[in-house]
Parts: sequence; structure tokens; C-alpha cells
Amino acid sequence: MSHPWLAQRTAEFDASGIRKVFDLATKMTNPINLSIGQPDFAVPDAMKRAAIEAIQNDKNGYSVTQGIPQLREALQTRIDNEYGHDDRRVLITSGTSGALVTAILTMVDPGDEVIFFDPYFVMYPALVRMVGGKCVMLDTYPDFRIDPDKVAAAITPKTKLILLNSPANPTGVVAQQDEVEALAKLAAEHNIALLSDEIYREFCYDSPLVSPTQWNDQTIVVDGFSKSYGVTGWRLGWMHGPAALIDKITMLQQYTFVCAPHPLQWGAIAALETDMTHQVNQYRERRDLIVSGLRAAGYEVAPAGGAFYVFPKVPDGRGTGTEFVTRAIEHELLVIPGDNFSERDTHFRISYAATVETIERGLEVLRQLA
Amino acid sequence: MSHPWLAQRTAEFDASGIRKVFDLATKMTNPINLSIGQPDFAVPDAMKRAAIEAIQNDKNGYSVTQGIPQLREALQTRIDNEYGHDDRRVLITSGTSGALVTAILTMVDPGDEVIFFDPYFVMYPALVRMVGGKCVMLDTYPDFRIDPDKVAAAITPKTKLILLNSPANPTGVVAQQDEVEALAKLAAEHNIALLSDEIYREFCYDSPLVSPTQWNDQTIVVDGFSKSYGVTGWRLGWMHGPAALIDKITMLQQYTFVCAPHPLQWGAIAALETDMTHQVNQYRERRDLIVSGLRAAGYEVAPAGGAFYVFPKVPDGRGTGTEFVTRAIEHELLVIPGDNFSERDTHFRISYAATVETIERGLEVLRQLA
Repeated sequence: MSHPWLAQRTAEFDASGIRKVFDLATKMTNPINLSIGQPDFAVPDAMKRAAIEAIQNDKNGYSVTQGIPQLREALQTRIDNEYGHDDRRVLITSGTSGALVTAILTMVDPGDEVIFFDPYFVMYPALVRMVGGKCVMLDTYPDFRIDPDKVAAAITPKTKLILLNSPANPTGVVAQQDEVEALAKLAAEHNIALLSDEIYREFCYDSPLVSPTQWNDQTIVVDGFSKSYGVTGWRLGWMHGPAALIDKITMLQQYTFVCAPHPLQWGAIAALETDMTHQVNQYRERRDLIVSGLRAAGYEVAPAGGAFYVFPKVPDGRGTGTEFVTRAIEHELLVIPGDNFSERDTHFRISYAATVETIERGLEVLRQLA
Repeated sequence: MSHPWLAQRTAEFDASGIRKVFDLATKMTNPINLSIGQPDFAVPDAMKRAAIEAIQNDKNGYSVTQGIPQLREALQTRIDNEYGHDDRRVLITSGTSGALVTAILTMVDPGDEVIFFDPYFVMYPALVRMVGGKCVMLDTYPDFRIDPDKVAAAITPKTKLILLNSPANPTGVVAQQDEVEALAKLAAEHNIALLSDEIYREFCYDSPLVSPTQWNDQTIVVDGFSKSYGVTGWRLGWMHGPAALIDKITMLQQYTFVCAPHPLQWGAIAALETDMTHQVNQYRERRDLIVSGLRAAGYEVAPAGGAFYVFPKVPDGRGTGTEFVTRAIEHELLVIPGDNFSERDTHFRISYAATVETIERGLEVLRQLA
């Protein structure tokens, strides 16, 4: 596809391999779908009711750019209680994606270097390149742990930003305290911005999330309602960070996303009072099921303490990630080749945000393919 | 406000003067608010019901990036019937703003020139500069008409895009057939992209909207539900244009806005079957009221055939737009100084998306200030 009017930055944007798998899914009658990055549980009723009431009560016009005060203040209180920073400000965003887009537009100049870890969330390289930044990807195979020495060695005078995603998409790995603390201090020492993408924060199965914000009061945190409450289509998230930065991001939001969807913001208030322990416990069981099933079948899979993904290695002699996934799809199993998230094509992503029955069917195919 | 991590492009983003007036409004007990760019009528019940049903029926996850097929196909049929272009494709966007952002990111390279008309919609210069483009503003005072010869003279080898907004914010002026036809043909002749921002399309009081799409089959049209149906907070719009461009914009949307808010897209389907003639007729009456009131008080105001704005000149000897508005605000009247929309500061914007009583109160103050 080409057109004489396309800007050069569009070369970075192609239909993602993930999307191609999704498109395949729509053509299959009963696929074993372990490809989807969204929870399979229903949205809590209290959230639905609050959003519906807002629509009925004419909360359908613009909200202020920053988000409705009731939601913003509830989050601000929670975050102030957690970190106690004087200068930490909250902004309601159009999903975590909206937070990432505006944060990167606000901080990354052409030529600036942005460090992140490979495997990575698909948006990171696309957004960094969209604004003319340079991606500095640090390979974390095979255990997907952060090596602070490797980060230190990658820092140059052009380094502007480090992106951390824990629990991680696509690996499900939760960064441990020693890694996070070292990274947080390193960023502070070099006066480099550190953005902590905590969208999967609620899905930590073995120990609570460790945020770099504890050790680095300039950390920019992005978070969202999408994954925690099953509302990926509501386009609702938030971010918090140093006030001067958040204020500028707010101005940029005013000219781009304008505001998060207004009536749905009211639904999000109800989310803050909703206990998701049951759902998280279910996902923990599914994590155990998929990890033990994969290992029993001989797959090498790194410990996955969070999110709802695992990222196994393709068994030796079974080709690249893409080749392996092509065969999986022939068996009606939808998973995502690792090269969508990595410079390597040696692994594949499984989402276990699916019923136990679907996971069992998926494991059956994976046993055949091993 | 400054911070060492801010990218250079953020210099283009400041708290808008409009926002400052809005903030003032929240501190006043009973302001005469003629500053707001959104309809004052309630959202049609059918739309509310459809959105509520979607929330109840678990349409809360991601939609496909392009938007739900039911909405997209309904719009595609309508647009195909109107223009009959083989290669015209529809995309559901996160509001008209989302359409503008992704279109400009997709087309404008650093150094590219973008022609638009002054007075302009506030987002145009901000977005063009955000991507490194150069604004080429063509002054249209005092009648806000497009002079095709002036456009032709402004075209250089770096010209990439022309932005047309009719009916226009802030002037309310609807471009006439001769202007639009000449502009459309000029863009085609020079192979320059032409983006027609038709967000106020439904609000044409004297004659139907003339779209350049009639004469230029490569025209990119942005449109939205926000203004026509009073759902500015739903963040729902659409665009249509040449398939290759729309496909690339879709990919860029996938990495930025992801999808328009899913449950609200179902509400938009109901919009397409809702007749807004009554509301438009009401706004026509208010247009007549404000224009005749202003003229009777001695204000110079250009014919305003659409949208819900008029853009009168500050009377001689009454200072700049900003000075005049400062005095208006002392009289509890909220309007917006013209320099928010222009390189000149000689006019002010009145929104008549307000009750007749509010408009009458506003006129009373304006008579005193004349």
C-alpha cells in the first residue's frame, strides 16, 4: 500500500501481526483463541450501572480535559496515600494508550534515545519512531529479567526516557524489587525520565507489584481500567507524575484526545470500589494450569508472575515463532508469533484470558506440536 | 511552567484562552455563558438507549480498530450514495479531533506546508506544528470568504495539505459553491491533499453544505457525532477518503487511539436514524436573533450561515478582542477573544448554543459595551 501523500513516519506503521491473527479468528468457526489481550470476565455491574446513569443524566458533553474531578480526586487520594509525593499529579487519559501517546509526544524529541526491554509491548517502538525518537532495545532473553548494568551501559547523552512494563506484555514477567530499585535509582542519577507502564498492576499472582515510584519520585506512571475491569473498549486510563510534566501532557491532551469518554468516566468511579480478587484468583489458577501444562509438554517458559500472558520458546527443531504459529493456526489454535514483540522470532505469546476449557484445548494442540 | 524533559514540540501547547474563559465560568454564580462549543440540547433518547443496551450486553471490550461494522457500513452506504466514488473508505474515529490528529500524523512530514484560513479552528496550528509542519495561514478578513487566487499564490513545492472548515468555527461562515469548487479543483490540479472538516455539516441554515468532495474525489472528509447530536463527550467521529490513505490512518489509529469507545459506537447507529431538523431549526432562529441583535447594536458581523458561532468585530475605539472580552466578563458575559482563532485580535466569538433567554441577556450586555 502506498500513496504519494503519506508522511515518512507512516513507514513505521503496518498492520500488526496480532491484527492478522485476529482477522483469521473471525473466519474460523470454533477457534481455540489464546491470542486476545483482554479479560474474558464481564464488566462489574456497579460500573455498568454508573456509566448507564451518567448517560441517562446527560453527562454526555465534554468533561474537563483532566477528567471529572470526582474520579481524579479519588485516584489522587489513593496515589498520595501510596507514595506521599508532594508533586505528584493525576490525569485521566483515553486509555493507557492515550497516556503513552501523549507522554511520548511531550517528552521525546527527534533523535532522542528511548531505552526499553525486548520483548516489548508492540506500541513502544511504533510510538518512539512516530515522534522521531531512536529505539534502544535491551535483549532480556531467556528469563526476561532486567540487568541494570546493561541499562547503565546503554545510557548516552541522548537518552531521554526508559520504558518499564511490569507485569509485562508479552512475557507475563513481574520485575523483582532488586531490578526495579536499581532501575529507578539509575534513572534518577542520570536525570532520565522513567515511565512505568502498570496496566497489568492488578494481575500480580505471587507478590504485589513493585513500582519504581517508591525510589524515584519523578517516575511517570501509566495505568488503566481496561484490563483490570474488562473495559478495554471504554478507552479509560490515567497517569501520574511530576506536576509540571502532567500539566504539559494535559495541554497536549486538550489538542488531541480532548478528554476521556465522559459518561464512561463515571463508570470508572465505581471501579475504584470494586473488589476484583475473585477474578484475579481465577487468573492465577489459569496461569498455573497453562505454565504447568506447557512445562509438562516440554516447553521452556519463564516464570510468569503477572498479566495474563506466557511467552514460551518454540521447541528446538520446530522452526521460528512465525512458522510455529502458522502450524498452530492449522490446528485452530490462535496464538501470536514472538516477532510482534521482539527483534527475535523464537517464541510465541499465549494469552490465558480465556476459559479453562479453551486453555485445555489449547494445551492439547501444543502437546501435539511439541 | 518548565521541565527539563519537555520536548521542543510542547512549546506549541499552552493552556488555551478558551480554557481560561471556561475556568472563569466555573467561578461565576450566574454567568451569561456564550462561550461553549457544544449544543445545549439533550442527546436523543434513541442514542442513549442504544448505548445503554450496548453496555448491558457486554459490548465493553475493544471494537475492531476501524469501528463496528454496523456503524461503518451504514456510513459507507450513505457516503457512497452521496458521492459514488469507487475508492472512498470510511473509518470510525475518536471524535473529529482523533480524525484530525491521525490524518495530520499520516500526511504531514517535518517541513511540509499546510494551508488553512485565518480565522481557524484552534487545533489546526497546534497539530500542524506538533508534527513539524509549517502553517501557511491565509487571512480572510473581513468577510471570511476564500479567495482561490490567494490560495493558488500560496502553493509551493512544499505544500502538502489544505484544511477547509465549513461551516466554520469560529466565524459560522459557510463556504459557497464557487469558493469550494475552485479550491477543490486547485488541490486536484496540484496533487495537494484537501481535508474538509465538516463537523458542523448538519448546522447549515440557509443552504445545504457544499463539500469539495463533489469535485475532488481524493478529498479527505472528517465528520463527527459530537456537535450534531450533542455528544461531544462520547469522542465519536468518522472520516472518509481514498482507501490507501484511510488504511494507513487506520494502522496509525491502532497504535494511538486504538478504537473509538465501543459501547458508544452502538449509540451512534441510532443517531443515523434520528431527525435533528427541530434542533437545527431552533438554532437557525437563535442565529437570526443574535445576528439581528448585534447589527441593531452597531456591531459589524459577517453573514453566518452555519455552525453555532458568530464572530463580530470589536467596535472602533473599544480596544482589542482580548480587552473587549475582559470588559464583557466584568459584566458576567463569557465570550472568547478572537486571538484564540486568529493572528489578529480584533474580533470575538459568540456561541449561540444557548437558550434564547441567555442570548437575550448576552445581547443586553453587548448593547451596553458597543
